Amino acid sequence: MTRCQVAVAGASGYAGGELLRLLLGHPGVEIGALTGSSNAGQSLGLLQPHLTPLAERVLEPTTTDVLAGHDVVFLALPHGTSAEIAAGLGDDVVVIDCGADFRLADADAWTAFYGSAHAGTWPYGLPELPGAREALRGATRIAVPGCYPTVSTLALAPALAADLVEPDVVVVAASGTSGAGKSLKPNLLGSEVMGNTSAYGVGGVHRHTPEIEQNLGARVSFTPVLVPMSRGILATCSAPVKAGVTADDARAAYLKAYADEPFVHVLPPGEWPQTQAVLGSNAVHLQVTVDERAGRLVAVGAVDNLTKGTAGAAVQCMNLALGLDETTGLTTVGLAP
Amino acid sequence: MTRCQVAVAGASGYAGGELLRLLLGHPGVEIGALTGSSNAGQSLGLLQPHLTPLAERVLEPTTTDVLAGHDVVFLALPHGTSAEIAAGLGDDVVVIDCGADFRLADADAWTAFYGSAHAGTWPYGLPELPGAREALRGATRIAVPGCYPTVSTLALAPALAADLVEPDVVVVAASGTSGAGKSLKPNLLGSEVMGNTSAYGVGGVHRHTPEIEQNLGARVSFTPVLVPMSRGILATCSAPVKAGVTADDARAAYLKAYADEPFVHVLPPGEWPQTQAVLGSNAVHLQVTVDERAGRLVAVGAVDNLTKGTAGAAVQCMNLALGLDETTGLTTVGLAP
Amino acid sequence: MTRCQVAVAGASGYAGGELLRLLLGHPGVEIGALTGSSNAGQSLGLLQPHLTPLAERVLEPTTTDVLAGHDVVFLALPHGTSAEIAAGLGDDVVVIDCGADFRLADADAWTAFYGSAHAGTWPYGLPELPGAREALRGATRIAVPGCYPTVSTLALAPALAADLVEPDVVVVAASGTSGAGKSLKPNLLGSEVMGNTSAYGVGGVHRHTPEIEQNLGARVSFTPVLVPMSRGILATCSAPVKAGVTADDARAAYLKAYADEPFVHVLPPGEWPQTQAVLGSNAVHLQVTVDERAGRLVAVGAVDNLTKGTAGAAVQCMNLALGLDETTGLTTVGLAP
Amino acid sequence: MTRCQVAVAGASGYAGGELLRLLLGHPGVEIGALTGSSNAGQSLGLLQPHLTPLAERVLEPTTTDVLAGHDVVFLALPHGTSAEIAAGLGDDVVVIDCGADFRLADADAWTAFYGSAHAGTWPYGLPELPGAREALRGATRIAVPGCYPTVSTLALAPALAADLVEPDVVVVAASGTSGAGKSLKPNLLGSEVMGNTSAYGVGGVHRHTPEIEQNLGARVSFTPVLVPMSRGILATCSAPVKAGVTADDARAAYLKAYADEPFVHVLPPGEWPQTQAVLGSNAVHLQVTVDERAGRLVAVGAVDNLTKGTAGAAVQCMNLALGLDETTGLTTVGLAP
Repeated sequence: MTRCQVAVAGASGYAGGELLRLLLGHPGVEIGALTGSSNAGQSLGLLQPHLTPLAERVLEPTTTDVLAGHDVVFLALPHGTSAEIAAGLGDDVVVIDCGADFRLADADAWTAFYGSAHAGTWPYGLPELPGAREALRGATRIAVPGCYPTVSTLALAPALAADLVEPDVVVVAASGTSGAGKSLKPNLLGSEVMGNTSAYGVGGVHRHTPEIEQNLGARVSFTPVLVPMSRGILATCSAPVKAGVTADDARAAYLKAYADEPFVHVLPPGEWPQTQAVLGSNAVHLQVTVDERAGRLVAVGAVDNLTKGTAGAAVQCMNLALGLDETTGLTTVGLAP
Repeated sequence: MTRCQVAVAGASGYAGGELLRLLLGHPGVEIGALTGSSNAGQSLGLLQPHLTPLAERVLEPTTTDVLAGHDVVFLALPHGTSAEIAAGLGDDVVVIDCGADFRLADADAWTAFYGSAHAGTWPYGLPELPGAREALRGATRIAVPGCYPTVSTLALAPALAADLVEPDVVVVAASGTSGAGKSLKPNLLGSEVMGNTSAYGVGGVHRHTPEIEQNLGARVSFTPVLVPMSRGILATCSAPVKAGVTADDARAAYLKAYADEPFVHVLPPGEWPQTQAVLGSNAVHLQVTVDERAGRLVAVGAVDNLTKGTAGAAVQCMNLALGLDETTGLTTVGLAP
Repeated sequence: MTRCQVAVAGASGYAGGELLRLLLGHPGVEIGALTGSSNAGQSLGLLQPHLTPLAERVLEPTTTDVLAGHDVVFLALPHGTSAEIAAGLGDDVVVIDCGADFRLADADAWTAFYGSAHAGTWPYGLPELPGAREALRGATRIAVPGCYPTVSTLALAPALAADLVEPDVVVVAASGTSGAGKSLKPNLLGSEVMGNTSAYGVGGVHRHTPEIEQNLGARVSFTPVLVPMSRGILATCSAPVKAGVTADDARAAYLKAYADEPFVHVLPPGEWPQTQAVLGSNAVHLQVTVDERAGRLVAVGAVDNLTKGTAGAAVQCMNLALGLDETTGLTTVGLAP
Repeated sequence: MTRCQVAVAGASGYAGGELLRLLLGHPGVEIGALTGSSNAGQSLGLLQPHLTPLAERVLEPTTTDVLAGHDVVFLALPHGTSAEIAAGLGDDVVVIDCGADFRLADADAWTAFYGSAHAGTWPYGLPELPGAREALRGATRIAVPGCYPTVSTLALAPALAADLVEPDVVVVAASGTSGAGKSLKPNLLGSEVMGNTSAYGVGGVHRHTPEIEQNLGARVSFTPVLVPMSRGILATCSAPVKAGVTADDARAAYLKAYADEPFVHVLPPGEWPQTQAVLGSNAVHLQVTVDERAGRLVAVGAVDNLTKGTAGAAVQCMNLALGLDETTGLTTVGLAP
């Protein structure tokens, strides 16, 4: 296999580090330029000490010049910065954006939640959504989904597609802190996070809300909860169940919907997802039931926010874009305990 | 103040340990007999090393003989064992049960969720519920609420009482592991718990479901989630909001409902509860808003499951039963960070 | 009791918050001015949400004007800032410095480790050291010890005093992250801290090294280790044991040395200290043995770095300075689990 | 490559699970029989939910019959059970024991620390020790080192080999809880472990002590410390430095000793090891300095106790035994944050 040259913009952050962790084990790529902004000039050995083989690599500045000349460019940058970089890269370069800029189709929703002008819409990198995989094969611009939308969408899509529930869903998702990135905020300090659980972005103001709505075509009440772990999201999702739908019906619909999906794993009956089981893996673990007393279908999903929730999805999309086997360089085996 | 003699049955467990922690700081009590079952004969120095002043105390067996002769007896025992003990204690003894046996009024709900015969119904130890405080003054039998019901009830009761929402609620509550007690189960091992979040009792099967329903008079979809911390519950609670109700309306209703409550603290606008702020305290931290996009009122509450969620509530009830100031020996100051 | 007026300079940090947590439960004080630097003007409800009763209090700037007029002023400030503040406060004000400025007697050691001019030496706030308690009674200037020196000193002092070991000690101490304060450093982010243990200040460069040397009169190899918890220090301390000294000798020496100390608790034989048992408490838990195979006495101590390691010691010193019972407002009961 | 058939005895434990995680990514093996004791008959989907591809596999009983017929048999069993199993497997089977039974050469030391008869001595699976690698090539019986001895030995061996220090070392090693296995002990419960650090096996009684002594040829004071994380060991190791030896001398000795080692990584000057950087990886991160004030060389090492500390070392040894590239199926990339 001729190895593709890949560059990673934003290599000092958590998404960038996870991309590199995965790319180091990917047989089809060669790691080219690594860029940073304030960290340019520093070595990865200092910034990402877990990437032992890249310890001597030094970050370059994030410019079109540095990134040009690669087959694939991953962007792991703050929102609002991808469009300009992408514009400077040719159509022959596969650009995979881990940020939010090109995820939403609705420009008004973008502006309402992000407060800036909409940059556009790229093929949406959730191959498990109906029709999405086809659009990703050979694509040269791909928007990687948000971490919460990935697991929430996969946890509820089969129920909505099979018309088992009303399109009026409630998602409460517990996330590890790496989802917030390396930003130096007081509430992200270890002393504040350990032994602590808190809700944030309550009341429909989190920016992933319109993305989940877009994916599910449903009204969404979304509450993210920060829990004391570094990685992982556990989403508890529910919706009013339609009359006569049983837990068996729900399970059958999920098994059918994901029968051929390499990364979606519906757990055996009675077993419920846990984030530890998917750490570092690209797997999504799901379970579903019906609470007849409360009249709701309840589905729970677990992902690693940095792997299937970001960088793993990006690699999965790269594989599709390049015509490689979709699972190359990815695993469904987690690191536990 | 003449100090009351208090006994604690089940002193080796987490609820028993928390009772003793609080009672050691209570000016109105003297700690009498401490009992255990398999741990009888062992010293507290080994079993509860944080209770330094009681290190030399030795556990006695849990029998009526040992417990008789105290003014107050706290029961921190497995479900199904309180009735027999209580029957052997006179009506002049204040018996405060931290277990579930006497919480539910509906015998059928008891049997459906606990699988045994209903033992009866005692005054319910949530003074903040309308009418409850009066029933607790001078009571000699008290059922302490479950930890999840305490926070879920307080988080939603004002909205239901003020007719702001439909009686059809969704509660997803993240809990630390001490809520599961000291039982030696593989999924409670530190290696399994740390770096891990999991859902359990999904689909309306958790035993706290009928208790929340009873308190709120509403249909309840309840999902407990285990998160990697020892103490604390954060409950995210929501219900369909009635037409025209705003976030300001909701906030006003909560402020009014809890204006005179010493342990319920509605946070300043924009600040959301976190469990660390209530660790070891008897406070409940609450916040509420309305998600107009999703048509739901969302309330979030934080408690320490062992303090206000169990042992603190028990002490609060004891104070009411004995005619002491309700806040004696309790604090609203948490241990953070 | 007429309550003393106390002020806390640096009320937004971890030491300041812990001081306030303790002072809220102290029957002899009234909390006066609370000051901050960049946080002046903000409310404690936002900065220290666990201090529920002080939620409405607003921070004032840290100036001599604001602090003057109190009976006691606690300084919880960055190193190098206490001298100027203290100089502006009269000799009738009890000034208790939680920082390092006045801890060392050796001006050269100060300059070698802190890189600035020595500000002076105040009575050292470790009452358990021989002679120290007397110097603290009625003192109006007190230097609170560092957290690592407190536990390391108490863990080894009896062995050195009784001539059981050579004055050549090794201390490896695991600390929670609150010891590093609220500084916004990347390595203190929750994502970096959780699931992670690291050594820092290795090779004798940590600033607490000369303080331990001063207390013990011994050569000290000190390595601090950061572990994933918010609070607590566990110090493993050892030294070459002199010929013929047994574990029983060692234990007897420790029991004798601490027989009358209200806050030092030598654990029962066979039980070893754990930090959880002392969280929020002013207790020091100790155990000692002799490893005959390796020829070393090994002592292990646990403290809460914010309580006995900082704010609890400060309150203990205040009690001595004011002539109150030394244990007022302090407890030996920890918050566990 | 013809894939070898490998069996894992003890597949439900942490070492067994980690072996399977690694073997699933190893191109040279096919996973054969998986055995358990009390768990025989259960599916891996329930016992090891992170091993998604093996979810349907069912554990067989641990008997010679089940294990025979494989090219390689990994034993991840309690101490004292390997000898009998191994005796029933032919000399053509590569038997790799993750337990302690065959690690020690000194029968007396075995009996003193393990209390039973010595089973024998197998080639010791630490290829980085001088002479060890050669003995492992083509071996059919291999004893995998203990987790603490692996990191302690690698952290100090170069200093002793280069005669930089006295053979009188102090090791204090912080470990995650998975090192204690899945045993249902109260002190390993999540509620007890989180927010807690404790010492155990203090005073030279931990069973890894004679193993470290054997490897280093030195007197060893070893104290293990349990810290609140699932995986990882950070060992702080020191010894009296010989006159005139500088930090640069020490660093040069370590760089030289490990120049050709694929899994040992001496960090850049000034950077100290952290366990997060080696999670799931077979790397050992090391740093060394000299504390001239205290007269000691101090070296710190980090490993993942389940990977390089157990299962990764076992796979590394298997590669040597089978004549494969030593690094096959292993990585030096950690899972962080």
